[in-house]
This record gives sequence, C-alpha cells and structure tokens, in this order.
Amino acid sequence: MTPKDLKAIVRTVPDFPAPGVQFRDITTLIGHGVGFAAAVGHLARLAQAAGAQAIAGMEARGFIFGAAVAVQLGVGFIPVRKPGKLPVATLGVDYVLEYGSDRLEIDPGAIAAGERVIIVDDLIATGGTALAAAALLRKAGAVVPTAIFAIDLPDLGGAAKLRADGIAVDALMQFPGD
Amino acid sequence: MTPKDLKAIVRTVPDFPAPGVQFRDITTLIGHGVGFAAAVGHLARLAQAAGAQAIAGMEARGFIFGAAVAVQLGVGFIPVRKPGKLPVATLGVDYVLEYGSDRLEIDPGAIAAGERVIIVDDLIATGGTALAAAALLRKAGAVVPTAIFAIDLPDLGGAAKLRADGIAVDALMQFPGD
Repeated sequence: MTPKDLKAIVRTVPDFPAPGVQFRDITTLIGHGVGFAAAVGHLARLAQAAGAQAIAGMEARGFIFGAAVAVQLGVGFIPVRKPGKLPVATLGVDYVLEYGSDRLEIDPGAIAAGERVIIVDDLIATGGTALAAAALLRKAGAVVPTAIFAIDLPDLGGAAKLRADGIAVDALMQFPGD
Repeated sequence: MTPKDLKAIVRTVPDFPAPGVQFRDITTLIGHGVGFAAAVGHLARLAQAAGAQAIAGMEARGFIFGAAVAVQLGVGFIPVRKPGKLPVATLGVDYVLEYGSDRLEIDPGAIAAGERVIIVDDLIATGGTALAAAALLRKAGAVVPTAIFAIDLPDLGGAAKLRADGIAVDALMQFPGD
C-alpha cells in the first residue's frame, strides 16, 4: 500500500480534543493489518536511509510505530518516558506546552556516545514534544539527524521548527489546512 | 537468541517502585537490537500458534511488544488505552488495583464480532490489568483465547488467575521467587 492508500485509512474525528480541531486518528490505521505493516515498512526504509543505529519513541503513541520500526531494522528501541516510570537514575527535560508544561525522561545508559538515534512518532503538530525529545537525546550523547512521522500537519509548524534545529523531517502523509 | 539468552539481558533493579520489590526492567532488552527482534519473533510465533487475528496491547509498555508482534504477523493492533485518550465513543472497564482503581478503554469499532484477539504484554505480575483488558475485549465481541508475555512472575499469581478465566498463558521467561 502506498502512503496515499494509507492516508485514506486515517480517521478524522472533528472537534477533538477541542472544538474546531480535526483529530487525525491513527487507531484505524494500526487496526488495519496490511496498512499498519505497510506504514511501518515505509517508516523503516526512511529510518534506514537516515543511518539509524537506534530508534527513539515518545510515550505512549510513539511506542506503537517506533518499536515496530526498531524491530524491523534490528536496532535498539529507546523509550522516551513520562516522569517517574523508569526505575533507574534518569536524564530529563522539562518543556512548555500550550497549556502548562510537561517532562520527558530517558535512561542515559541506553545511549552510546555519538550513536545516531532517529525519532519515530505517529504525528507531528506543533513539534514541542519532538523538540524536547531531541534535546534530551542529545544531552545523553546521541546524534539526532532525523525525525520521521506517519503524519505531518505542516500548518502547525512543527516540522519547520525541527528543521531550524538541524533535524531533517520526513513524513508518510500530510494534512494541510489543519 | 534463545529465551534463556534474553533473560540475561533483562535488568533487575532492587527496591523499585517500593522497598523489597525486584523490578524486572525491559529497557535493557528492548535497547538490545538483536535481543529485541528475537523476543518479538518468539512472541509472534506464540501468537500465531494461538490463531491471532489481531493483537491487543495495554498502554503504555504493552504497546512496545504488542505493536511489533502485530506488524510481524500482518494483523491489526488494538491499543487498550488509559481513559480520555481515544477520540471516539469508547467501551470501558473499571478495575481495582492494590492501591486504588483504574480504567481501560478501547474503540469498539476496532473489533469484529468473534475476532480472535491475543493479548501481548511485557510482564505479568498479579494480572489485574490483563484480566481487565480481556473482559473489555470480550465485551466488544472478541474471543480472547490466549495472553502472551515476555516475562512471567509466577509467584504473584497473575498467570493462574488468567487460566482460571479460560485464557491460556505463555511467557518467554519466568522469574520465580519475586
């Protein structure tokens, strides 16, 4: 299945989580066996072309695509977690959201110095979480050349922000006008 | 790598999340490219032998193994989510934990009537979450014949509870005495 076929499987839910927002819902894509495997295959090829030595994914939806891509490439998966979940001494980063703030944590022992870590996530909107994850992975010694998404909402500016931070961005599909 | 090799990669963290608890940490296993792929391969063979038509995984760590197994088998992945995350009308189940209670939700549209859904998770301890997930999937019309785990802590009784509920249990490795 091509990315265009995959786009047709993504469900759009109007007015979630707030009035006026079109929520692009991957539940229908990952529930489609052939479509999910095709999406992971496309993402894995992009990650391999970027020289992935490990894949990082952000809790919780980022685990779905990221872990499957890591397995396909035979490289390690680094879970970027919400606070308090990892049982070891962690490295963390606080970041600001539209309403309030949040924190991400990783196990610094999961990353070798200079390792090329590719971020994989389902969707990029404003890019705040992906930027914070990249900063955290770099703090742990990783090189983060590329971030790869199933869906890009380009009008929300996240991909542009990542590129301004020196991170190449690739996505299987875009929904302009969101 | 055999399950015995994989067991050697699991990190044990003493006294987390509470004094006296030995935390069996999969971060080191999923961070090991060859080990992670081997673990998913073993889990996928078990799920296929159980006649998997779809895989369900519980937020958040369950997404890591479950989604990768679904991709390997070319079947759909059903995320069993914490409350308020899914953008559609959900089916939910409340269940009691050692301290307090929690709730799981799914999109009932993700399940066809009579579909054989296999639960995949990283670890089974007391089994409360897996039992609740199975009840929820059944409420949505699924058949849940089997649950598969990377790690079983048999002394905590979860596997026995699932079996008493008519669910076959398989695991790649056990840590008795926990």
